[in-house]
Amino acid sequence: MSEPFAVVDVIIAKRDGHRILDEQLDWVIDAYTRGAIADEQMAALAMAIVWRGMEPTELARWTAAMIASGERLDLSGLDRPTADKHSTGGVGDKITLPLAPLVAAHGVAVPQLSGRGLGHTGGTLDKLESIPGWRAGVSNEDFLAQLRSVGAVVCAAGAGLAPADRKLYALRDVTGTVESIPLIASSIMSKKIAEGSSALVLDVKVGTGAFMKTVESARELAETMVGLGTAHGVRTVALLTDMSTPLGFTAGNALEVRESVEVLAGGGPFDVVELTLALAREMLAAAGKGDVDPADALRDGRAMDVWRAMIRAQGGEPDAALPIAREKHVLTAVASGVLSRVDAYAVGIAAWRLGAGRARQDDPVSFGAGVVLLAKPGDLVTAGQPLVELHAMSRSASSAPSRHSNPALSSAAS
Amino acid sequence: MSEPFAVVDVIIAKRDGHRILDEQLDWVIDAYTRGAIADEQMAALAMAIVWRGMEPTELARWTAAMIASGERLDLSGLDRPTADKHSTGGVGDKITLPLAPLVAAHGVAVPQLSGRGLGHTGGTLDKLESIPGWRAGVSNEDFLAQLRSVGAVVCAAGAGLAPADRKLYALRDVTGTVESIPLIASSIMSKKIAEGSSALVLDVKVGTGAFMKTVESARELAETMVGLGTAHGVRTVALLTDMSTPLGFTAGNALEVRESVEVLAGGGPFDVVELTLALAREMLAAAGKGDVDPADALRDGRAMDVWRAMIRAQGGEPDAALPIAREKHVLTAVASGVLSRVDAYAVGIAAWRLGAGRARQDDPVSFGAGVVLLAKPGDLVTAGQPLVELHAMSRSASSAPSRHSNPALSSAAS
Repeated sequence: MSEPFAVVDVIIAKRDGHRILDEQLDWVIDAYTRGAIADEQMAALAMAIVWRGMEPTELARWTAAMIASGERLDLSGLDRPTADKHSTGGVGDKITLPLAPLVAAHGVAVPQLSGRGLGHTGGTLDKLESIPGWRAGVSNEDFLAQLRSVGAVVCAAGAGLAPADRKLYALRDVTGTVESIPLIASSIMSKKIAEGSSALVLDVKVGTGAFMKTVESARELAETMVGLGTAHGVRTVALLTDMSTPLGFTAGNALEVRESVEVLAGGGPFDVVELTLALAREMLAAAGKGDVDPADALRDGRAMDVWRAMIRAQGGEPDAALPIAREKHVLTAVASGVLSRVDAYAVGIAAWRLGAGRARQDDPVSFGAGVVLLAKPGDLVTAGQPLVELHAMSRSASSAPSRHSNPALSSAAS
Repeated sequence: MSEPFAVVDVIIAKRDGHRILDEQLDWVIDAYTRGAIADEQMAALAMAIVWRGMEPTELARWTAAMIASGERLDLSGLDRPTADKHSTGGVGDKITLPLAPLVAAHGVAVPQLSGRGLGHTGGTLDKLESIPGWRAGVSNEDFLAQLRSVGAVVCAAGAGLAPADRKLYALRDVTGTVESIPLIASSIMSKKIAEGSSALVLDVKVGTGAFMKTVESARELAETMVGLGTAHGVRTVALLTDMSTPLGFTAGNALEVRESVEVLAGGGPFDVVELTLALAREMLAAAGKGDVDPADALRDGRAMDVWRAMIRAQGGEPDAALPIAREKHVLTAVASGVLSRVDAYAVGIAAWRLGAGRARQDDPVSFGAGVVLLAKPGDLVTAGQPLVELHAMSRSASSAPSRHSNPALSSAAS
């Protein structure tokens, strides 16, 4: 046996509350990636980390080892600054779609590697794939070429970036070890740092529809990630934003593309526009362009031009008709009053069950399915008024959620 | 998928400090035994149990499920009561060898399924296998026949008893999840209860050479095991006994057989005789024979007769010469004074390195190797007086421990 350490010693050290040694951290990530540490040993170590946490210097070394497990893109040869955004995920969170072209329209390149949805949260790649012809897979060469020509790429991360994270995330998903701030932070930041952007804006969601339910835990995650980015020379800032209500009026793939295009056309829901502009301002400032008004590019159509070029560069047809649900089911207000709450988590679950999301990583999604909100909190509603449209590809799916006595709107009317 | 539960839900419940539901406990053990729960999932659950512990009723159900994973022997057809002993393991702990025939000589059957040594603690089966011809494997039929004819069987547990424990123990060994009182207690007790004895005496070791280093942890383990045995209808008592000094004067396989035969012949080291009689008294009392003096059978040779019959029944030749080490190395006192401490752990490590023990479960052991103590704590020693004999099959092994500046006796002379 030529391994320099015994993994049981590392597991026991963490289990007993000790810091793992630097050389052991490097070795654990490397050995796990090449299969010299068994899944059951990594699972025990991951649970010990959920239990005991990690010290900041320990986590920094762990994250560095994850980055070192694969390639790190070099974007320094571009003729313009780079800035990326990462959201921890929410319901109706389509912000990447208008944001990437908007920032690129101001001369800052946006290299955004995105993911697919799982459970009640949607995925940016699933949304874009509802555009006929659009492809998520982009080679490293095409990635750089598109950044030069268009200025924005939203695509799937290649297998070469942080392969340790890919393997570890799949393990954590089946072993109940997802919920750990150091493990979440290192998973996100290893990929984002390997991606090569010189600036990064984090949108850390907090609320019922988010992974972090409390401001305290969201703040801890944000501070941990900012610390990791800064330690690796990436200018990193984080916004904590609300995810107790869905963003905009839609949750679902094609539905959200349509809403995003409205924003790029200068319209769209107020909350989506506001968050897009807030994140754009941070990205531009982090890239050294703090003096421009990002809203300009929405008004004058430059952001829309970049959007169309970005979609076309990946094979998509921006003018093609998007998939539409075959079945719609309308839920109405049971009483008159003020709509007090539209629960993001419940809307996310409904969209998922209607077919917009997936339960397992290789499930297909229904592009036309989802939820359209016809009213938002604060609106006056009258009994019988339509509140929600459920969109599905089959009647059974669209009628299913109504059996659950409408949880998304249970406190709707008062 | 026809499984009634998702194992991730069970892992998360335990991780978050909740009790696992009864039906989930039954299912987890059953599904893991038949391979429907992956090793990485069980490893994460085991670490969560190390972290959160188990409530008494939860542990009782878990243990019942482990017993139900295999067969449970029925000894009710025997013409005499049954009593078994389990030691949590120590250095020089040869007590089973004189104890089983001694109790059997008083008309109480002793069905003892034993294990092999690992690390610094020896194993009863390894010791008996140093007797030429002796076999550890006994079929269920021969097991019952030998209990009827001889009254005592010491043998390896068949694969049919608590297979869940066999699989789980191998997993815990490589995932840093051995050190958990509920997991240790359920592992021991599931096998012991499945073995079918109606009475059980536990010898819980405490001290440097034992698994439990403190009286508090030993007491907690003892109380947990007594609770589990009692809940399953087995009359269970526990003794906490010292393991800071090795038992007797020898640690090593054939060396300990020789010392055990001395005890059966009415002689032997005082501490071995004393503990053998104390455990015999408890076993006889638990089997309804609290009024007999176990020492009678040592004095009149009945215990020795049972020993010889027990060894012969499993193919062994009680009069055959035992293996003897080829090399001996004597350590002497560096100064005159009173020997204050002979550290059990260090002696165990020395015996292991000399070849008496194993590092992995399928390593061979050297039957002749081991340590002979020529003095014990409290003895007056003079400078240059021999204190320890190291026995090994090769010169390199016997000289190796002396390089370690004699840790077993570091506080020897004062």
